[in-house]
Amino acid sequence: MAKIAIVYFSGYGHTKKQAEAVLAGAAGVSGASAGVVAINAEGLIAEEDWAALAAADAIIFGSPTYMGGPAWQFKRFADASSKPWFSQLWKDKIAGGFTNSATMNGDKASTIQYFMTFAMQHSMIWLGTGLMPSNSKAATRNDINYVGGFSGALAVSPSDSSPDEGPLPGDLETAKLFGARIAGYAVKTRG
Amino acid sequence: MAKIAIVYFSGYGHTKKQAEAVLAGAAGVSGASAGVVAINAEGLIAEEDWAALAAADAIIFGSPTYMGGPAWQFKRFADASSKPWFSQLWKDKIAGGFTNSATMNGDKASTIQYFMTFAMQHSMIWLGTGLMPSNSKAATRNDINYVGGFSGALAVSPSDSSPDEGPLPGDLETAKLFGARIAGYAVKTRG
Amino acid sequence: MAKIAIVYFSGYGHTKKQAEAVLAGAAGVSGASAGVVAINAEGLIAEEDWAALAAADAIIFGSPTYMGGPAWQFKRFADASSKPWFSQLWKDKIAGGFTNSATMNGDKASTIQYFMTFAMQHSMIWLGTGLMPSNSKAATRNDINYVGGFSGALAVSPSDSSPDEGPLPGDLETAKLFGARIAGYAVKTRG
Amino acid sequence: MAKIAIVYFSGYGHTKKQAEAVLAGAAGVSGASAGVVAINAEGLIAEEDWAALAAADAIIFGSPTYMGGPAWQFKRFADASSKPWFSQLWKDKIAGGFTNSATMNGDKASTIQYFMTFAMQHSMIWLGTGLMPSNSKAATRNDINYVGGFSGALAVSPSDSSPDEGPLPGDLETAKLFGARIAGYAVKTRG
Repeated sequence: MAKIAIVYFSGYGHTKKQAEAVLAGAAGVSGASAGVVAINAEGLIAEEDWAALAAADAIIFGSPTYMGGPAWQFKRFADASSKPWFSQLWKDKIAGGFTNSATMNGDKASTIQYFMTFAMQHSMIWLGTGLMPSNSKAATRNDINYVGGFSGALAVSPSDSSPDEGPLPGDLETAKLFGARIAGYAVKTRG
Repeated sequence: MAKIAIVYFSGYGHTKKQAEAVLAGAAGVSGASAGVVAINAEGLIAEEDWAALAAADAIIFGSPTYMGGPAWQFKRFADASSKPWFSQLWKDKIAGGFTNSATMNGDKASTIQYFMTFAMQHSMIWLGTGLMPSNSKAATRNDINYVGGFSGALAVSPSDSSPDEGPLPGDLETAKLFGARIAGYAVKTRG
Repeated sequence: MAKIAIVYFSGYGHTKKQAEAVLAGAAGVSGASAGVVAINAEGLIAEEDWAALAAADAIIFGSPTYMGGPAWQFKRFADASSKPWFSQLWKDKIAGGFTNSATMNGDKASTIQYFMTFAMQHSMIWLGTGLMPSNSKAATRNDINYVGGFSGALAVSPSDSSPDEGPLPGDLETAKLFGARIAGYAVKTRG
Repeated sequence: MAKIAIVYFSGYGHTKKQAEAVLAGAAGVSGASAGVVAINAEGLIAEEDWAALAAADAIIFGSPTYMGGPAWQFKRFADASSKPWFSQLWKDKIAGGFTNSATMNGDKASTIQYFMTFAMQHSMIWLGTGLMPSNSKAATRNDINYVGGFSGALAVSPSDSSPDEGPLPGDLETAKLFGARIAGYAVKTRG
């Protein structure tokens, strides 16, 4: 079985919903098993979580976009990963990323770009969404990849929405397809 | 009078409409005069255009986002600007940027980021939109800064829309306010 | 007097040295006063520090580059700035940034890019180094802007160097000139 | 055989030397064949070059960094690739990138970041250098990955150097190892 680990931080629950959609997509792929690692409010994960990441074939990073980048809790996790980085323990693992914020753009691209840079420091192999955007006149807000991410999966939850209200089903379906893409590639390349 | 130059490339006319909105915003500021420089299909501008840029207090860059960055015609202009760059002729001029593409995100941020990097090579002074995004549940597509750019002004024109159909009035109003912001700062700092 | 605030995090003391060089440059400008705000190991600053930032004409951001971006402590500060962001309290303040890491490139550009994105969310006005790089055959490691930053000031301290050994004098002089540039513009535009 | 295509633009010959080093690295991998596609001074490649790219298992992008991004000729090639993009012809091909410029940093990261964004639009799979940087006190300019790229291979050729003088052997060896990494992964995943 190819193992997929989704490591994410969620501040209010919206990104958690997105992470669960990525999980559902990954877990639904034949030959793949998937699990989540939730970074806590202090930016920490447990010792066994580090072991789970070390054992994974693919690691998917997730965080809301706060003030133009990943939440500090995600960054604290990233900084703590200097230990596996030092021995390049994650080298050649597959990587991907997703983010949620209140605004359509709102610098979500900056968060995804950080994830890519971070993955490259770990010598990982980066996959994007593999999804064409929905961008014709007939497009509607709830379409697959309407928000329009190539490098990673994007979701929008209005600033005053509860996690029950956002992200919308279309953004969650986008996340699910993204999870399936990562898992599918992990299965294919595991040999 | 503070002089504002808007130098842009437009492939099909959508970005031209956005440039005209930026122009209207800049020209409407008391104490400012504004004009456009259109980069042609070969990526060239006339000799007098270079002179206009050299004489400007602020230069605003515009291009559609094609394949994740500014159109090659804009980049050809940028590369040709190595001549004023070499003598840092544009140093301390005010700068800003705008872009249009078919997709909500669609890597528009990459184009704006390039504009910023480019402006910094010229030792220019960068201003963003200064506009808070419209991102609550009550937000509608046609609101000011619904597309949600901080670093530069963003517009979306569906892939199958004519320039008459896109960008939407809200995105054009965003562009206008952005032009006014740049011109206002140019007037204020001209002394 | 134009007030310049330098807010930075330093993990081992190298970035602190860089911050002190920026401070020396800013404080040396006629008509400017400058001070530092050190983010602590938990990513926090004091209440009076927030007041100092609110009162500043220019805010300069500094952090080491860790794992391809600013240290989590800086990001925690950035996330906490959502309070002044919400009311756009820092709008039209001047901004700039600097970073130090062990590697020549080592994704320092990612940290500076984050600083720019962050400043744009605050509707600040970004200035880079305004320094041409030293990049001819005759260039030596200790030249002004040998490391070659346009968008922000860069320094390199080898991975096994103490803060006494790095950054090198050339990188510190670069930081000083950068501080002077920011302060000079703050004085000029204060009116 | 896994097919590796290196598509690059070179203005003065320095990036060509880097491309040849990438080629040597890729061609030296058992089970891989490699070839170059040179973008001409007008930003064009031949019809058979497009066919070679379509047939490749991996495509490596190369360009000098001019004015903070890839040369316009590379961007023209990128824009022309909207044709294979439209039908996602390059989906799941392996991708990587390299760049050369006169300055140590000099916004090389911006060019590599563009390559990544571009590859993600094509739904490609991105690999970086997989090389730890040389960044201790004992490091010397001619070490493998002294310039310090993770996301792509970096080289520096002084502004007044001829292609015979730059890039240095260490940067070329870095390029060679990078080419070997891409080819190795292409062979491994070809199945």
